[in-house]
Amino acid sequence: MTGGKRIWCQLRVNLSTVAMLSTSVVAAQPVPPKPALAPSEIVAAAPASDWVAIAPSDLLVMDLAPNSNGSAKRVVIQLMPPPFSQGWVGNIRKLAAAHWWDGTSINRVQDNYVVQWGDATEKKALPKDLVTLGESVYTSADDAVAVNIAAITVQRAAKTVGNEANGKFDDEWRYNDSYSSNTFANEGWPIASDGKVYWPVHCYGMVGVGRDMPPDTGTGAELYTVIGHAPRHLDRNIALVGRVISGIENLSSLPRGTGPLGFYEKPEERVTITSIRLGNEVKDLPRYQYLSTESASFARYADARANRRDPFFIQPAGGADICNIPVPVRIAP
Amino acid sequence: MTGGKRIWCQLRVNLSTVAMLSTSVVAAQPVPPKPALAPSEIVAAAPASDWVAIAPSDLLVMDLAPNSNGSAKRVVIQLMPPPFSQGWVGNIRKLAAAHWWDGTSINRVQDNYVVQWGDATEKKALPKDLVTLGESVYTSADDAVAVNIAAITVQRAAKTVGNEANGKFDDEWRYNDSYSSNTFANEGWPIASDGKVYWPVHCYGMVGVGRDMPPDTGTGAELYTVIGHAPRHLDRNIALVGRVISGIENLSSLPRGTGPLGFYEKPEERVTITSIRLGNEVKDLPRYQYLSTESASFARYADARANRRDPFFIQPAGGADICNIPVPVRIAP
Repeated sequence: MTGGKRIWCQLRVNLSTVAMLSTSVVAAQPVPPKPALAPSEIVAAAPASDWVAIAPSDLLVMDLAPNSNGSAKRVVIQLMPPPFSQGWVGNIRKLAAAHWWDGTSINRVQDNYVVQWGDATEKKALPKDLVTLGESVYTSADDAVAVNIAAITVQRAAKTVGNEANGKFDDEWRYNDSYSSNTFANEGWPIASDGKVYWPVHCYGMVGVGRDMPPDTGTGAELYTVIGHAPRHLDRNIALVGRVISGIENLSSLPRGTGPLGFYEKPEERVTITSIRLGNEVKDLPRYQYLSTESASFARYADARANRRDPFFIQPAGGADICNIPVPVRIAP
Repeated sequence: MTGGKRIWCQLRVNLSTVAMLSTSVVAAQPVPPKPALAPSEIVAAAPASDWVAIAPSDLLVMDLAPNSNGSAKRVVIQLMPPPFSQGWVGNIRKLAAAHWWDGTSINRVQDNYVVQWGDATEKKALPKDLVTLGESVYTSADDAVAVNIAAITVQRAAKTVGNEANGKFDDEWRYNDSYSSNTFANEGWPIASDGKVYWPVHCYGMVGVGRDMPPDTGTGAELYTVIGHAPRHLDRNIALVGRVISGIENLSSLPRGTGPLGFYEKPEERVTITSIRLGNEVKDLPRYQYLSTESASFARYADARANRRDPFFIQPAGGADICNIPVPVRIAP
C-alpha cells in the first residue's frame, strides 16, 4: 500500500537533488519542485480547442418558483445525444414545446437518491403524439460507440505502460467497475459496456425517465435526477435522457420528503415549476461548453482524478470510478 | 447482457408452469409466482438476533439551531470502533466532554461533496490533552480484519458457485472496485484493502477529520460528512472517524455555500451548533442497532442490492460497489 507513497516521496527527493545540483553551479535560489496540478487546474489550463459547444436546442431549461428571498432558481439540463434514449428525448422535446410542465411541480426528494418532478395529479392529459418505448432501447449496440471504446482501450494501455516506466502506480485495479466490464467517457457522457452493448450510467446529476412497473410505461413527462451516490442498479432498468449541467443545488438542497420514497406528503411542500423550455426558446441563456472527452486535456484530467498528486494528497488512489470523473462543463469565456 | 433477463423470465415461466400443473390437479386458483424480496424487505424480515446494539457512548449527538418553523434538527453519528482511527476518536470524546463544539457552526456545504463544521474563527483554544496523529494510522494491518476478509472471500466464492448452478449471473465483475483490490463490510463498516492493510471507505454519510496540508494537522475538532457520490480519492488521505446514522438530511439539504470549496461567505449563513454530546449524556436517546454484517440476513441483503430481482427491475446489475450496500441501521423495536 505504501508503493505509491514511496514513489511520491522519491520524486520529490529527486527533484530537490536536481535543484541542489543546479544551485551549486549558478548560486541562485533553489528552485522548489513544481507541485502537480489538481484536476481543476488541468481543466482551467485546457486550450479553447478542447471545449465543445452544447447547442442551445439540446438544453432543457427548468425555472422554479423563486424562494422566500425572491431569488430565481434555474436548472439547466443537457439532453442526451444519439445513440441513446432518442425516443424519450423526442417526447421530452414535444412536452417542452407544448409547455406541458408549466405549473407542475417537484414532488419527491429522497435523500441520497433522487429528486423527481412532473404532474402530481397524474391526470394532466399528455400530448397525443408521444411514442411508447421499452427495455429493448435501454441499451445500444451502435458501432460508433464500439470504435470509441477500442480507441480508449488503446489509450489506457499506453497510459499503463507510461506509468510503469514512471515507477508503476497501482494500475491493476484502476478501471475496475462493479456494474460492467468496462466504463468510459464517450463524447461527453459516462458510458458502461459488457463488451456487447453500451448504456449510459446513473452518475450524480444524471436525468432519467420515471416509470411504473412495466418497462414501457415511462413517457418522459415524469423525470428525476440523481442527488446521491450513483444508483448504478438503475442502469439498464430505466432510460437516462440527460444530465444537469447547471443549478443542481436548487434541487439537491430541497427539503427531503417525509412520505414513502421521499414524496412530499402535503401539496404545499411541492415546489412549483414555473416553466420548462428548450434552450433555443430562452433569451440570454449562457453558451455552455463541455471538455471534449476525446481531448488530451480530458485524459490528463481523468488521470489526475484517479491519481491525485496535488499537494494535499499523500496517497494517490490508483483508480477512479466513472462517476468520480465528471465531465467538466463551463460557460464559454 | 440479456443473460440475467432471460433467467428472470425463465424463472417466472417455470413457476407459472408449476402453478398451472397444480391447478390442473386440485382445480384451485392458480398461485401467482412469489416476487423476489427487495433489499428493504429482507432487512425488515431479519430476526432480532441479527441486529447489534450500538452503545450510546459510541454515539455523538449534534443538535443544530432549529429552523424557521422551530423544528429541532438533530444529527446522530456513530463513532468508529477499533482498529481504525482510535486516536482521533479519543480526541473527539474529549472535545465532546469539554462541550467544545457548543456555539460553533456548520461552515461549509459543497454540493456533491461534503458538509463541514467546527470553529469558524479558527481561534478557539483546544483542550490541552489532544493527541497528534498522522498518515501512519490512516490504515491498519490488524489481524482480526484479515480473518474476517478471509471468511468473506470464502462466502463470496460459495455464492458465485451457487449462482452458477442457478444459471450464472454476471459474476465476473461483481466485487470489482476502482480504489482497492477488495472491499467488504466488516463489523458494520465499509472497509477496503490492498491485501496488506485495511482502511475505512468514504461512502455517503461517513464522517472524517478535516486537516491542513500536513497529514498530522487534523485534531478532530473540524469534522465533515459526505453528502454526494463517494469521494474515494480521500481514502487513506484523511482519517475517517464515524458515520451519520440519523438526521443526515439536516446537513445534506442545507443551502450550498457560494464561496470557494462551498464555504459560506457571510457569517449569518452559518448554521449554529447548539451542542454536541456523547450519546450516554443525552436523555431519551433512541436505542440504535445495526444489521450485523456477519449475519445471513446481511448476506441476503447485499446479494439483493447487487442483483435486484424485485418486480420493478428487469436487469439485475450483477454487482454493487461497497457504498451501494449501506449497512442498515434502525431504532430498536
